[in-house]
Amino acid sequence: MIKAAVLGATGYAGIELVRILSSHPDVSLEILGSHSFDGKPIAEVYRNFDHVLDITCEELDLDRVEKCDIAFTALPHGASKDVIPSLIERGLKVIDLSGDFRYDDIKVYEEWYGQEHSSPELLKESVYGLPELHRDEIKGARLIGNPGCYTTCSILGAYPLLASGIGKHDNIIVDAKSGVTGAGRGLGLAYHFCECTENTKAYKVATHRHTSEIEQELSKAAGEQIMISFTPHLIPQKRGILSTIYINLNKPCTTEELVDMYKEFYKDEYFVRVKNAGELPETKHVAGSNFVDIGIVVDQRLQRAVVVSAIDNIFKGAAGQAVQNMNLMFGLDEKTGIKNAGFYL
Amino acid sequence: MIKAAVLGATGYAGIELVRILSSHPDVSLEILGSHSFDGKPIAEVYRNFDHVLDITCEELDLDRVEKCDIAFTALPHGASKDVIPSLIERGLKVIDLSGDFRYDDIKVYEEWYGQEHSSPELLKESVYGLPELHRDEIKGARLIGNPGCYTTCSILGAYPLLASGIGKHDNIIVDAKSGVTGAGRGLGLAYHFCECTENTKAYKVATHRHTSEIEQELSKAAGEQIMISFTPHLIPQKRGILSTIYINLNKPCTTEELVDMYKEFYKDEYFVRVKNAGELPETKHVAGSNFVDIGIVVDQRLQRAVVVSAIDNIFKGAAGQAVQNMNLMFGLDEKTGIKNAGFYL
Amino acid sequence: MIKAAVLGATGYAGIELVRILSSHPDVSLEILGSHSFDGKPIAEVYRNFDHVLDITCEELDLDRVEKCDIAFTALPHGASKDVIPSLIERGLKVIDLSGDFRYDDIKVYEEWYGQEHSSPELLKESVYGLPELHRDEIKGARLIGNPGCYTTCSILGAYPLLASGIGKHDNIIVDAKSGVTGAGRGLGLAYHFCECTENTKAYKVATHRHTSEIEQELSKAAGEQIMISFTPHLIPQKRGILSTIYINLNKPCTTEELVDMYKEFYKDEYFVRVKNAGELPETKHVAGSNFVDIGIVVDQRLQRAVVVSAIDNIFKGAAGQAVQNMNLMFGLDEKTGIKNAGFYL
Amino acid sequence: MIKAAVLGATGYAGIELVRILSSHPDVSLEILGSHSFDGKPIAEVYRNFDHVLDITCEELDLDRVEKCDIAFTALPHGASKDVIPSLIERGLKVIDLSGDFRYDDIKVYEEWYGQEHSSPELLKESVYGLPELHRDEIKGARLIGNPGCYTTCSILGAYPLLASGIGKHDNIIVDAKSGVTGAGRGLGLAYHFCECTENTKAYKVATHRHTSEIEQELSKAAGEQIMISFTPHLIPQKRGILSTIYINLNKPCTTEELVDMYKEFYKDEYFVRVKNAGELPETKHVAGSNFVDIGIVVDQRLQRAVVVSAIDNIFKGAAGQAVQNMNLMFGLDEKTGIKNAGFYL
Repeated sequence: MIKAAVLGATGYAGIELVRILSSHPDVSLEILGSHSFDGKPIAEVYRNFDHVLDITCEELDLDRVEKCDIAFTALPHGASKDVIPSLIERGLKVIDLSGDFRYDDIKVYEEWYGQEHSSPELLKESVYGLPELHRDEIKGARLIGNPGCYTTCSILGAYPLLASGIGKHDNIIVDAKSGVTGAGRGLGLAYHFCECTENTKAYKVATHRHTSEIEQELSKAAGEQIMISFTPHLIPQKRGILSTIYINLNKPCTTEELVDMYKEFYKDEYFVRVKNAGELPETKHVAGSNFVDIGIVVDQRLQRAVVVSAIDNIFKGAAGQAVQNMNLMFGLDEKTGIKNAGFYL
Repeated sequence: MIKAAVLGATGYAGIELVRILSSHPDVSLEILGSHSFDGKPIAEVYRNFDHVLDITCEELDLDRVEKCDIAFTALPHGASKDVIPSLIERGLKVIDLSGDFRYDDIKVYEEWYGQEHSSPELLKESVYGLPELHRDEIKGARLIGNPGCYTTCSILGAYPLLASGIGKHDNIIVDAKSGVTGAGRGLGLAYHFCECTENTKAYKVATHRHTSEIEQELSKAAGEQIMISFTPHLIPQKRGILSTIYINLNKPCTTEELVDMYKEFYKDEYFVRVKNAGELPETKHVAGSNFVDIGIVVDQRLQRAVVVSAIDNIFKGAAGQAVQNMNLMFGLDEKTGIKNAGFYL
Repeated sequence: MIKAAVLGATGYAGIELVRILSSHPDVSLEILGSHSFDGKPIAEVYRNFDHVLDITCEELDLDRVEKCDIAFTALPHGASKDVIPSLIERGLKVIDLSGDFRYDDIKVYEEWYGQEHSSPELLKESVYGLPELHRDEIKGARLIGNPGCYTTCSILGAYPLLASGIGKHDNIIVDAKSGVTGAGRGLGLAYHFCECTENTKAYKVATHRHTSEIEQELSKAAGEQIMISFTPHLIPQKRGILSTIYINLNKPCTTEELVDMYKEFYKDEYFVRVKNAGELPETKHVAGSNFVDIGIVVDQRLQRAVVVSAIDNIFKGAAGQAVQNMNLMFGLDEKTGIKNAGFYL
Repeated sequence: MIKAAVLGATGYAGIELVRILSSHPDVSLEILGSHSFDGKPIAEVYRNFDHVLDITCEELDLDRVEKCDIAFTALPHGASKDVIPSLIERGLKVIDLSGDFRYDDIKVYEEWYGQEHSSPELLKESVYGLPELHRDEIKGARLIGNPGCYTTCSILGAYPLLASGIGKHDNIIVDAKSGVTGAGRGLGLAYHFCECTENTKAYKVATHRHTSEIEQELSKAAGEQIMISFTPHLIPQKRGILSTIYINLNKPCTTEELVDMYKEFYKDEYFVRVKNAGELPETKHVAGSNFVDIGIVVDQRLQRAVVVSAIDNIFKGAAGQAVQNMNLMFGLDEKTGIKNAGFYL
């Protein structure tokens, strides 16, 4: 059994990790770290765990965490940065759900996060935890920067078009819509039920940090540094991201040709489901699962591909993907504990 | 492995059964019966099953179903009634999710359902599948009448007060609120998103069939025939039933005393969670799980108990309970495949 | 033109008042009082008012409010209590939306609100602002205690049965469901979108303050002091209250007879719509309007009436009713500015 | 008083027209046409109108409609096409809410709607009813093609950038999100509450008819024929469209410069609210109103403008705009009956 700690267990990403790990056949949940709920059983913080999970939240104590094989850090930016070097030093593998260890280039991090990085050496060592693109490095990694939710959805949607050379590099638009769990459990007027239901809005237009993460990965596919427009939106549902991606084509293609290309590209990926021509993803198809659904339409009038990709933002976009990474790091079947269909209802 | 058929697999209760059974460690899903989607892979009807479950829906064919050990019938009233005798005859165990086999007294059925019962002998043999009350008979049964959603929630909420003699037998009120999955997948103006969201209403006041089912079980607890008021409401959410139950007391009690009594009554029940005094259930605590959460408050001014119970209507109220029954019928641990915490999010 | 001040203009009840008054043909909105948004245009606090209403919120200044003919106080309990005597002294009429001036008996207030009342004299003078029951006193009043939302819905639903002598006085149950605007704009985990959507719960069982208000009015109808069970629930929608009321009958009645009795009782009331037998209210029928919809069913088996009443909690349950009261106090047609149909959509 | 008929009164656009017109000070609603509800009072079809509007729906009878000054046709495509010539012939002004009379070029209509146009002469005469762009022609028109919902939102969002010459003509992307009222009241699995809530999806990618309407108007602004990508999405709310529009810039601009340019462009338009730099529209700010809110951000890295525009799809996107057009056609103040702030809640 893999002994696991979840630090920051009572936020939404943290508790989804707890939910998944608590029924993972090869994991023993040992430590649930929570500053706010220190001393409180997790089943009192999230009442759905009553009778299911009997663990008490605790303040971070490195000596206690040391017994674990792996720590998932679902802490605010900065907080995880301070803790992670100590965890690594004590021999744990770490999967960090913050943005701190997702970058190849420290300058990009510092520019988009507006702060100095405190562990440049670890950043260099860390691996970007998108298994569909970096599976082999993940297997051998000690430290994973688990990708953002918008980024997972958007990168996997756009990647094949750029890697194949069919997509042009300029005028790439990613218009993404996210459910409200993406904003976390913190209070704020924008997340008050009465302000949030029956409402849709864009936010952080042209400035959202996930832009840089998407650009980093898509630049690898493109073979040169590219820049994109990324616009996040908040939609009145709990789970789900839908990214609508616009990419001009270098040569005439039909929808069917691109669908075939995508299917070939992802043919070994259990968690990627490329839709047949004429069909498009919906967030309810992926809610509660680790799947990424991708649909492609070619606008023949404009020779432009419109790619629509969907994930569950706190599952494949956070907790589920972290478990997928853990499975790889410990030599398990990648799908262990997360191969289920979504809720649909 | 238990070989299972789900007949009526593409309705909401049916597909939830498919979802649960597809990750049940001791079950092999063999047959998905669907008249409307005959010949169509289930993963094309419910896209969340793509990559997960590769079974094609089929028209009912008793010769093919015969290979199964158990059939779950999630068919409309009447439809299941015709099929079930043949299934039993061929040696299958049957768990029926309709109202047809839930009654001790055929007259009650015929009065509330307004039709003659076509299998009086089987009705006599059938067992009411509420494990918390009828576990032993379920273990030996061939045919289970799986309880209704409102009834599961309401019976388990009220039972201890009546069984203990503390609750009075008249003036019992059950005011229940249900999510929209309870109405099934059939189209109707009342279930159009724009008519249903931001709306709450009562329906079938004083005439809902579940009244008779609740009365049947609570009469056993009371030791005499009782009658109740039951009012169902439709609330704008997918999953969840909350029953608020009013019962006058035969003797002065405190909230704490009744909580203790309930905890004692359900002390061996994994799936019943009695709240501490001062705490009340919420449907989000049970959504996606097989739990029944029960809270009790005594109104000291009136010597009246207010019991609030919550379930997920398509899980504990239908599919999950059916699996709980199957586990008992096949000698498995009752919790197998359904012991998970709910989604919460 | 009636010069009006809304004190506490930026809470939900306050802003609904502003919305209604801003298109009232006989009202000139002069003062919008807001402690939190002092100095900020209301159209910056609620962006829907941009281009429509150009008034800047201000800290309470009695010398400035003095020019008004009427002040609506939508302040927290206690806050309004301190301000109101000064307003009255300066000659304004006052409609208070808090609980402070709704009681005939100061002891009831002090018991249920857990505090001493600071203006016993004014409490004695104040009129309970439910026009359907107290129209004449309202016309001559200086100070109105505007009824609570649950109470408006519940009192009007139950009143005719008690006033007619047909309803029994014991075993009256009021099971009420409210949208989230009823909780106001203040932040709280329970009102976070992700905690609130897809969730229903009961709260303050047997202890909610509105119990005492309902009892006060229904006792008048009954001709003796009565006590009721009142259970509030939170449902995932913005606007709307549905009260389901259970009252035993003193004599055998049919649904049709009670419907006729209700229609007769409310025959002169524009804002009360009694449903025909066989039809029940829904909150979407009243959302955005000042109507109270009432449906009645007699459970023949139990000789018990089930009355279902619906209002929009922030319209008829707060702001709209306050305007109805103002209309009466200033000799206008009671329906002025509020006779519109609801939104439905 | 303007005597008005609403034909197709019981669909969502129709009933919103009825709602608005029923409190319009200069309109007398004479005829509510409905094939499905012939003979039924409108207040029985939409219960919110009980006590408010006492008109019985009727089958279309041209002799009866003849007494009206204006007819609003909210009929399915084709249906309105047949009726409108007769209405015009009998001297009525007509505002048609279908797509039949929105086009300058009959070939564009026939290509996108896949059918021959039956009244080419009337099409030639008809005026595109977007007052902010065609006010003068509307004033003198007999027949208005009332714009689509997506198109109103998208055209007004993009127009100033193209009219000013600042926006480039290629690579224009319009990514639009619509509430479910846009799909109308017809039944369909996609609009079942349980399938629709907690779900977002794109549909009709690259093929939606509104594309051609947007292109027609933006081509006028651009001074040459342009083509755009338009992607509609369905989001789980009733009212509201948010269009996110991407347009490359011909010259370096700041956000502030573009905001100023938009404010100047729309300076005389009551119903257009250009947001200050740093602020973005939300659909709740416009729900229930005739306003269009527009926010602009320049992505400095890419010299690309991101324009976000929001309307209420059945108000400014259908019924409210139709009333705005009527006001202009009859010489009234354009804002009459529709100048209100939205609901917000």
